[in-house]
Amino acid sequence: MSNYTAPVADMGFVLKEVVALEKLCQFAGFDPSTVDILETVLDAAGKLAKEEIEPINQSGDLQGVKIDSAGKVTTAEGFKEAYQHYVEGGWGSLQFSPEYGGQGIPFVVAASVQEMWHSANMSWGLCPLLTQGAVEAITYNASDELKQRYLPKMISGEWSGTMNLTEADAGTDVGSIKTSATPEKDYYLIRGQKMFITWGEHDMTENIVHLVLARLPSAPLGVKGISLFLVPKILVNEDGSLGEPNDLKALSLEHKIGIHACPTCVMSYGDTRGAIGYLVGEENKGLECMFTMMNNARLTVGLQGVSVAERAYQQALSYCNERVQGVAPGYKEAGPIIRHPDVQRMLSTMKSITEAARALTYSACTEVDMAASALPDKTLKKHARRLGLLTPIVKGWCTEVAQEVATLSLQCHGGMGFIEETGIAQIFRDARILPIYEGTNGIQSMDLVVRKIIGDNGLAINELIVDMRESLSSLSPGSPLLSSQIDRFEASVDDLEKTVSLLLKHSTNRQFSGLVAFDVLMMTSTITAAWQMFISVERAKLALESNKVSSEFFDDKAATAQYFIDSILPRYLGHFITISSTDIGVQ
Amino acid sequence: MSNYTAPVADMGFVLKEVVALEKLCQFAGFDPSTVDILETVLDAAGKLAKEEIEPINQSGDLQGVKIDSAGKVTTAEGFKEAYQHYVEGGWGSLQFSPEYGGQGIPFVVAASVQEMWHSANMSWGLCPLLTQGAVEAITYNASDELKQRYLPKMISGEWSGTMNLTEADAGTDVGSIKTSATPEKDYYLIRGQKMFITWGEHDMTENIVHLVLARLPSAPLGVKGISLFLVPKILVNEDGSLGEPNDLKALSLEHKIGIHACPTCVMSYGDTRGAIGYLVGEENKGLECMFTMMNNARLTVGLQGVSVAERAYQQALSYCNERVQGVAPGYKEAGPIIRHPDVQRMLSTMKSITEAARALTYSACTEVDMAASALPDKTLKKHARRLGLLTPIVKGWCTEVAQEVATLSLQCHGGMGFIEETGIAQIFRDARILPIYEGTNGIQSMDLVVRKIIGDNGLAINELIVDMRESLSSLSPGSPLLSSQIDRFEASVDDLEKTVSLLLKHSTNRQFSGLVAFDVLMMTSTITAAWQMFISVERAKLALESNKVSSEFFDDKAATAQYFIDSILPRYLGHFITISSTDIGVQ
Repeated sequence: MSNYTAPVADMGFVLKEVVALEKLCQFAGFDPSTVDILETVLDAAGKLAKEEIEPINQSGDLQGVKIDSAGKVTTAEGFKEAYQHYVEGGWGSLQFSPEYGGQGIPFVVAASVQEMWHSANMSWGLCPLLTQGAVEAITYNASDELKQRYLPKMISGEWSGTMNLTEADAGTDVGSIKTSATPEKDYYLIRGQKMFITWGEHDMTENIVHLVLARLPSAPLGVKGISLFLVPKILVNEDGSLGEPNDLKALSLEHKIGIHACPTCVMSYGDTRGAIGYLVGEENKGLECMFTMMNNARLTVGLQGVSVAERAYQQALSYCNERVQGVAPGYKEAGPIIRHPDVQRMLSTMKSITEAARALTYSACTEVDMAASALPDKTLKKHARRLGLLTPIVKGWCTEVAQEVATLSLQCHGGMGFIEETGIAQIFRDARILPIYEGTNGIQSMDLVVRKIIGDNGLAINELIVDMRESLSSLSPGSPLLSSQIDRFEASVDDLEKTVSLLLKHSTNRQFSGLVAFDVLMMTSTITAAWQMFISVERAKLALESNKVSSEFFDDKAATAQYFIDSILPRYLGHFITISSTDIGVQ
Repeated sequence: MSNYTAPVADMGFVLKEVVALEKLCQFAGFDPSTVDILETVLDAAGKLAKEEIEPINQSGDLQGVKIDSAGKVTTAEGFKEAYQHYVEGGWGSLQFSPEYGGQGIPFVVAASVQEMWHSANMSWGLCPLLTQGAVEAITYNASDELKQRYLPKMISGEWSGTMNLTEADAGTDVGSIKTSATPEKDYYLIRGQKMFITWGEHDMTENIVHLVLARLPSAPLGVKGISLFLVPKILVNEDGSLGEPNDLKALSLEHKIGIHACPTCVMSYGDTRGAIGYLVGEENKGLECMFTMMNNARLTVGLQGVSVAERAYQQALSYCNERVQGVAPGYKEAGPIIRHPDVQRMLSTMKSITEAARALTYSACTEVDMAASALPDKTLKKHARRLGLLTPIVKGWCTEVAQEVATLSLQCHGGMGFIEETGIAQIFRDARILPIYEGTNGIQSMDLVVRKIIGDNGLAINELIVDMRESLSSLSPGSPLLSSQIDRFEASVDDLEKTVSLLLKHSTNRQFSGLVAFDVLMMTSTITAAWQMFISVERAKLALESNKVSSEFFDDKAATAQYFIDSILPRYLGHFITISSTDIGVQ
């Protein structure tokens, strides 16, 4: 029996009502029929996730991945077959340009589908995730020739992609990488070792396209001397056929807490003659090119947080409905533990966080579509600003709360939660990577505070605050929210505004911004997520009035939003006081 | 190199200045020379922890424990030898009565020593932890004959002890156990299966004394029909020598997230003729007897939270001082990551939580000594009430914050944190059992709210609040705390008082108390921990004035207390608002 069923009702609601897919298609130039086929797409993806990708999740964790002395990596049973079906179904190409074989569907719809892969099997889902990022980096930065030669097979999923940044002494500080690139004819010879390369080597695709950061001879020190190279595992002939193997291999696999079925490789480039690589973008502009990939990957890692939370919630709900233990208040006989108020508290916490995280993430993904559309420049820039602001929020908050939901779900299982057999232990272990990779959440919080808030003198965050106030002032009569809840949200927006003022007041004090950054991230995210629940409940009311959702769905959404505003939103106060105390400390 | 050094300076400070060991000895009738030998005891225990128990921690995790087809369990390399040295050093007998070979040292001192075992090696430390609990259950409840025959070897540590409560369908709801006990001559025949039995079978001691909950024929249903039995692995002859093996064995070991070197057993009693067991306490009063063991074990599990936090903090501090990455604000060159403000935030959070948890736990352990002393009855009862109140607080809060400190330490390691080799992954995995065993933290919160607050009509919690206000009003001039910090602590005490009123107002509404219980636990604990830091900084000031601590120690403690009150205490507000909102919800 599968432990996961895609939450297509909530996904459909968020897509259609909260981020307003129809309007998105209209404004951003997508085919309006997207809305009509949405349910079919979600159902089909849900079926693949449930029937093929989830069933190999626990066995994949147990079997792990194996590497032989030649560096050949073997994935767990069934991984290759599930991937083959994913490729055949065209799932890898949803959001990409029809020019290279993509289907031109909005990114936010593709994101909802990806949410399912990561819920079903995080280890497996990382292969498409990295490929998607590589496709974007190539699309926006590479020459037409490279695009023609590599994109179609990557978009179809026949070839996978990776990103190679980290070296032993260059993690967060990517500027200190040492991998070298020597110019040679129309290519470069790459030499060096990279670590933490997700799906760096495997047997699911016939080729792997590595995007590798390296330094040209006499490049400037630091991040301004890094270039990006496309380094295929197997060289590709002019006619697109596969040629000779390149000079690169996986040296070893990491022994990790979780995502055991995902090969995390130490990669060696150019051990003998040098690995052939092709420049992507301009020389010494590699980090900017890689950021095309990383920004999107950051959103998608936030999305993985939603996936983990959804799956952990579903597993807890199922266990709490089945496990009989103790007599709950108001009952005379032992019954399922969901009857106990403290268990209800845990489930409500998990559910409200998960739904808020989904609405927040999808709303950020919509900005990707808007920012890439043909809207007038001024509007485009506003969407790009909003996307920039929301990216560290989605990556940071959704991956932090995924830890909470995973650990709460484990707690709901009591002693069985600590035992591997129930599967919740795996979710808990797998989830722990999320606050680390694609930029630790410390880095996300610095990105938010230094670049996205101080860097534009508060413009983007103040636009967000204006939108929040607009939601408050346009509240429809008869809101299901209590006035105490509306007041609480309004007060949080006031406190957010005060926090922005504090950050701008100390804009040149990097010690201050560094000390408060994580609290700012958590405070801003919690309030923004509450805003999404605020919008969700309003839209649910409208949808109920026009018979688009059932009264059961509406009641459920209203209760979830109320719970979020009563029990999750107030956490921002702890962060706000810490920020204010730090302000006093630096006076 | 050992990854752990016992924090003897802070331990000594809390013991001598915060819980006032000298006065404790005086009031509770302990040998006053305890104070003089304290440093020697802590240093010797620290040496054993660092040199013998810690070095087998990571290897134990990798090797795990093995069971053969006969149910024989083999522990990891070096475990038996380290345990032998522990027994030879007399470390198991510190706090027990000299009547049975104990050393009559205060429990709180023994607790500080135990903190070291669990920091060094949680899997290993669980064997003495369970033995200590079994000794207490026997001491307070068993017949003189059983005491004479079993206690001396258990107190010395030559025999270990276990507690057997859980069955497949009886976890939190222990009242539904099915294991049976049939009277037979002067003993009983025990038949049934128990699970999650920590150190249920192993090769470190020549005998294992199981304390087993079972039902007599025609016993009343539920918790009032449970009796406690002493069931030795090897039967003990009248002269104390070992006789025949009893009819019991380990069937299997659990495959867990962590504490891999600790055998967690499914135990089978009486498969053939019935296991011989001896009644401890009265028939059908087994749960009360077991609670003698469980209350103490709950405190000690809270203490394990302190141990985990201390170790995780030490490892993060060491890593952040060594790992070079990036240029921090105010520097011109790359340096250790401890220079980065966000890393400092994580370290300050870890340190302040760890020290607050230690002060809180030791103060509760002192109540064990006071409650067992020869003080006048009225005073004794007050100490017993305080102990009862603090037990779920220590178990609940210290094990929750241990998760936070462990995960923060892991986060400080960046990508390396997710890889097993650094050791922090093991701490993170091991720690996850703490909020579950010895009563989940949901159960702790119900114990606090229903039994300890509503059950005595607020007496114990109001005594605590009076003591907090007394600390506020007797604040010495020139406190290192800012007035904003003092005000914040005072406001939190006011809010705690309001929360108690709400709980008493809804005293018969078990849905309400169940919904808010966990928030009440976290709020009360956070404020009580802040109070301990408030006391700590005051005592540190007095100690500085009388040259008992260095100015460096004092400055450090003052900064840590300030950080706790600025950045950790404010979290209670989120819980308080949730509680208040739930109050509105039930109007």
